[in-house]
Amino acid sequence: MINIGIIGAGRIGKVHAESVTRFVKGATVKAIADPFMNEATEAWAKEMGIPCVYKDYHKILEDKEIEIVLICSSTDTHSSISLEAIAAGKHIFCEKPIDHDVNKIKEVMDALKNSKVKYQVGFNRRYDHNFRAAREAVKAGKIGDMNVLKITSRDPGAPPVSYIKVSGGIFLDMTIHDFDMVRYMSGAEVTEVYAAGAVLVDPEIGKAGDIDTAVITMKLSDGSIAVIDNCRRASYGYDQRVEAFGSLGQVAIGNDSDSTAVISDANGVTAEKPKYFFLERYMAAYTAEVDSFIQAVINDTPTEVDVNDGLQPVLIGLAAKRSVAENRPVTIKEIAEEYGL
Amino acid sequence: MINIGIIGAGRIGKVHAESVTRFVKGATVKAIADPFMNEATEAWAKEMGIPCVYKDYHKILEDKEIEIVLICSSTDTHSSISLEAIAAGKHIFCEKPIDHDVNKIKEVMDALKNSKVKYQVGFNRRYDHNFRAAREAVKAGKIGDMNVLKITSRDPGAPPVSYIKVSGGIFLDMTIHDFDMVRYMSGAEVTEVYAAGAVLVDPEIGKAGDIDTAVITMKLSDGSIAVIDNCRRASYGYDQRVEAFGSLGQVAIGNDSDSTAVISDANGVTAEKPKYFFLERYMAAYTAEVDSFIQAVINDTPTEVDVNDGLQPVLIGLAAKRSVAENRPVTIKEIAEEYGL
Amino acid sequence: MINIGIIGAGRIGKVHAESVTRFVKGATVKAIADPFMNEATEAWAKEMGIPCVYKDYHKILEDKEIEIVLICSSTDTHSSISLEAIAAGKHIFCEKPIDHDVNKIKEVMDALKNSKVKYQVGFNRRYDHNFRAAREAVKAGKIGDMNVLKITSRDPGAPPVSYIKVSGGIFLDMTIHDFDMVRYMSGAEVTEVYAAGAVLVDPEIGKAGDIDTAVITMKLSDGSIAVIDNCRRASYGYDQRVEAFGSLGQVAIGNDSDSTAVISDANGVTAEKPKYFFLERYMAAYTAEVDSFIQAVINDTPTEVDVNDGLQPVLIGLAAKRSVAENRPVTIKEIAEEYGL
Amino acid sequence: MINIGIIGAGRIGKVHAESVTRFVKGATVKAIADPFMNEATEAWAKEMGIPCVYKDYHKILEDKEIEIVLICSSTDTHSSISLEAIAAGKHIFCEKPIDHDVNKIKEVMDALKNSKVKYQVGFNRRYDHNFRAAREAVKAGKIGDMNVLKITSRDPGAPPVSYIKVSGGIFLDMTIHDFDMVRYMSGAEVTEVYAAGAVLVDPEIGKAGDIDTAVITMKLSDGSIAVIDNCRRASYGYDQRVEAFGSLGQVAIGNDSDSTAVISDANGVTAEKPKYFFLERYMAAYTAEVDSFIQAVINDTPTEVDVNDGLQPVLIGLAAKRSVAENRPVTIKEIAEEYGL
Repeated sequence: MINIGIIGAGRIGKVHAESVTRFVKGATVKAIADPFMNEATEAWAKEMGIPCVYKDYHKILEDKEIEIVLICSSTDTHSSISLEAIAAGKHIFCEKPIDHDVNKIKEVMDALKNSKVKYQVGFNRRYDHNFRAAREAVKAGKIGDMNVLKITSRDPGAPPVSYIKVSGGIFLDMTIHDFDMVRYMSGAEVTEVYAAGAVLVDPEIGKAGDIDTAVITMKLSDGSIAVIDNCRRASYGYDQRVEAFGSLGQVAIGNDSDSTAVISDANGVTAEKPKYFFLERYMAAYTAEVDSFIQAVINDTPTEVDVNDGLQPVLIGLAAKRSVAENRPVTIKEIAEEYGL
Repeated sequence: MINIGIIGAGRIGKVHAESVTRFVKGATVKAIADPFMNEATEAWAKEMGIPCVYKDYHKILEDKEIEIVLICSSTDTHSSISLEAIAAGKHIFCEKPIDHDVNKIKEVMDALKNSKVKYQVGFNRRYDHNFRAAREAVKAGKIGDMNVLKITSRDPGAPPVSYIKVSGGIFLDMTIHDFDMVRYMSGAEVTEVYAAGAVLVDPEIGKAGDIDTAVITMKLSDGSIAVIDNCRRASYGYDQRVEAFGSLGQVAIGNDSDSTAVISDANGVTAEKPKYFFLERYMAAYTAEVDSFIQAVINDTPTEVDVNDGLQPVLIGLAAKRSVAENRPVTIKEIAEEYGL
Repeated sequence: MINIGIIGAGRIGKVHAESVTRFVKGATVKAIADPFMNEATEAWAKEMGIPCVYKDYHKILEDKEIEIVLICSSTDTHSSISLEAIAAGKHIFCEKPIDHDVNKIKEVMDALKNSKVKYQVGFNRRYDHNFRAAREAVKAGKIGDMNVLKITSRDPGAPPVSYIKVSGGIFLDMTIHDFDMVRYMSGAEVTEVYAAGAVLVDPEIGKAGDIDTAVITMKLSDGSIAVIDNCRRASYGYDQRVEAFGSLGQVAIGNDSDSTAVISDANGVTAEKPKYFFLERYMAAYTAEVDSFIQAVINDTPTEVDVNDGLQPVLIGLAAKRSVAENRPVTIKEIAEEYGL
Repeated sequence: MINIGIIGAGRIGKVHAESVTRFVKGATVKAIADPFMNEATEAWAKEMGIPCVYKDYHKILEDKEIEIVLICSSTDTHSSISLEAIAAGKHIFCEKPIDHDVNKIKEVMDALKNSKVKYQVGFNRRYDHNFRAAREAVKAGKIGDMNVLKITSRDPGAPPVSYIKVSGGIFLDMTIHDFDMVRYMSGAEVTEVYAAGAVLVDPEIGKAGDIDTAVITMKLSDGSIAVIDNCRRASYGYDQRVEAFGSLGQVAIGNDSDSTAVISDANGVTAEKPKYFFLERYMAAYTAEVDSFIQAVINDTPTEVDVNDGLQPVLIGLAAKRSVAENRPVTIKEIAEEYGL
């Protein structure tokens, strides 16, 4: 039985704790730490059967019985805790993004090079049943060579402007998942980005220096073209779709909804809206990604989403940001070279 | 150029005239007759380029240049005009039903035996693109052996009770099309019928001695089972669907609508309603059935829907009627033998 | 923390144990008993944290700390164990059917009358997200008054003929769920049944005295008509659908599949098949039904599926069986009176 | 009865002739001219009841009884024949594009300014039932303010490279319809274009200096963003879809297919492919556009698609071409100013 420590007891930390406890064979959550640990969380931990509850995550890093840590703390701590955990020899599952600062990601990459630590980044959509079915179809050659990859990604509503201000901007906060999906779906690398952005949802987002609506075109290393359209608000729920079009055909995935019920009446033929909340849509994916990581540790196999998979979407996001600012296509090479990559 | 005379200038007579004029190669409408011929219809005929307009249909039967008649008069005249037209040697396309009285259908059958006249009954749904696609799939073996055939057939709204009273009842007026579809889809004969009926739309229909809602189960000569559900009112439009289920799979057809537009908003994901009016749904089928008949005449091939195809659904309808009245399954043999068939 | 004992450690017993352990708040599985208890099951129980493992279920009934039993043993023991458990004062969740013999169900009903024991029958489909969405739409008046209720229920493949022989026949084994769905969807009682049956899947099933394909028409107490079509084999998977049609419209539910992926290529536009296995389709429903029962015990509220809900589908099934045997509609009253109900 | 002359008896000229003859009230085709007039076409014209058949279209322009001309000749003659027809005082329906050369379009615009001639450009998709339903939903405010407009437009197969060479390139030949759709759907003007192009279908297209796959992002005058994805080959047929996404929701339109038949079997749940051929998909739209134009002449109302609607997509197409060549966003203003617009 492998022991797990969870750093950060916010929403996603709890989700991972419950996944491990309920569904993951061969692993148990031994400890959870959060600087804001409170009675409610302690009660929840007790109910989940988690023996150790800390305010200071260093107690997890110091615990010799704990082999794996899940880093679910605030984004600005991901890279520094990663470095400490690598030093402590813990295998690491780190929520996305590793950091908004490429240099800090590089530090983590360097530290990993000299260690036997396994590292996985929390790009949960790779474990979603729909995205995975699309990827499997592509990999199986069902669409032939990819020509055009289209991703629609719309949140049900914008986060508070206070969050927007520290989010790193739409491309590093929201589109980063879609950039990962471009790489996952295509199996290719993004080489160049052109992004058109607009403030159409909330002028306050514009005042905060961000955009809320975007269309991002990418040239890929295999010669194909990808395009993402984003919006911070979709009246009908969380809208996450992909169309991968190739020489032999197309695979498309749609949204999940609460039921297959369709009502036909004087107003039309009406199906249910997509699930509204990302945790509803991706709950099974969160379980699957953590399970996949733990099995990789147990079986000593490579993790499915490694540190480079954490780096690339940040580079693409920075290219997209510059593309909007300067209204020109920006290569990934241009960004990477600035960081000596 | 083959000359056609149309007997009856009501809605369906005009539909056929326009089909022939616009789309049917090798044929032209020479005359149209209607006892209630009026100025508006004469103006319409002129615009359509129909040279002869009569009150008395005998003028059509007497016209040696006319080879084909389309009988689109009121139902109670179908069999007698058929007999006259057979005597006059005209090829006949007769709207359904030939008659509600089996004896009168038998007279037409007998007259046809001693003639070279081609005869087709107006079961237009056999020419609908959806029903035909389902039938082609069945015929091509795509579902294997038929096990269960399900037909949903609902009108958008009930006709006036005055019409209901002379309609012959729901089974001869409305379900007759569905009985024909059972035979068309399966390629088998109905051997036994059990019908459950109810008055759920309008109590006046019940007072008139009819029902407005029914579920009819049929045993077929190939061992499979068919079931039809009918209702005189569907709030969302004209609902005409088929599911044919067999040893290898199922083919299902749905309704046509005005467009593929789907609106996603706070109310759900809403597609258009089915087309409301049978003429909208089946317009192309009306053209195709008349064209098919005329080509059968021109090429001297058998008609696709013959006089026996006109008889069988009437026998099934009578069995269904008796089944409701006596609350028992009724064989087609029982009905047929009463008419010496 | 309420203690639960599970009688029967077969597939469904294990499903319930896992549901309680993972998802049900306020309850824990203390014991599981099975006459065929073996090492594998004991190891599984240990992993699930179930402290007591027995061959003899009486040890569960004798355990004063256990308040709830889940009866998951073979069908022929459901009623006798129910009686023992009632005598022991345990609240009971019993897998369907209580018994194929109405007299034995009556004994259970009688015993319950003089006790405070809560009793729920395992009609899991009532807890399925799709069926529930349809029921909620009906209850909310979205289709107005029910006119026609249609249920399609097809298994992916027939069970072994050895099972068929002891199954009680298709109506008590398979359709019983659909009869329950008729009552659940409509909120009305079945008053009369006409069933047409056929042997189209496997002649051995016919030799065993059963049928494998059926269409069952039911008249309901609210004047509406219901129809079920069953088949023991659907090449494309487990097919469980409902259409409830009423004065204001229709609600229809379809199947769940593994993903929303749709592939468009030279062969057509192809979506995934329905989930193949009932445990896949209904896993969440199994959890929800057990949770609902346990919460009813904890909160001392009525169970959602009571002993009468266990009785009625058996009566309907017996009526259907007689209907096929005698080829006539059979009333539920006729069956009920034979049992003094 | 208004007399019509058709200049060009190729595929589209014949389509228009048949539309007018069959469906347009108040108009008749008096003459058709084609330099390659042959016996087959003459026979067809006779069957259609077209009295005059010419090689030289000037005979149509000289015919005082002809009030309307439909210009269906080769693209390179559209503008010069337009000028002659304006001089002759004929109302003009001109197939798209007016010309690939903006200066020639300007000449037509100038000539129209000093005349009472009505002019319509053949952007048939505006009359398609699906596109129109989407536009009506947008106009009715059902999606609120437009945020992102997405158009997918894929041909079933690439035309011969010999055609590609004289086609003006993908943007003026194929995307021009989609540029028109951007303007039609949004009711706004395109202000800036960025296009990414690739040669993925056929290297010969690349050698001919063209591309076969493209993603084109446009900024619109209302602040929203539009994106088109094009490909010259879709294995599954002619793929023409729109998604218009706004503050209140989304309207999406899909393709038409030959039937609603869906086959469920061991391979999946398979619907029909989109219609393969643009004439099949848009036949009713061709009739509607010609009818709309003729009614505008009869009722002296503005045409629905005017000469500016013919100009703008050419400007957008030229901007897209330059965008690919120079890999930068290009404003419409930049192009327009070069032509003194």
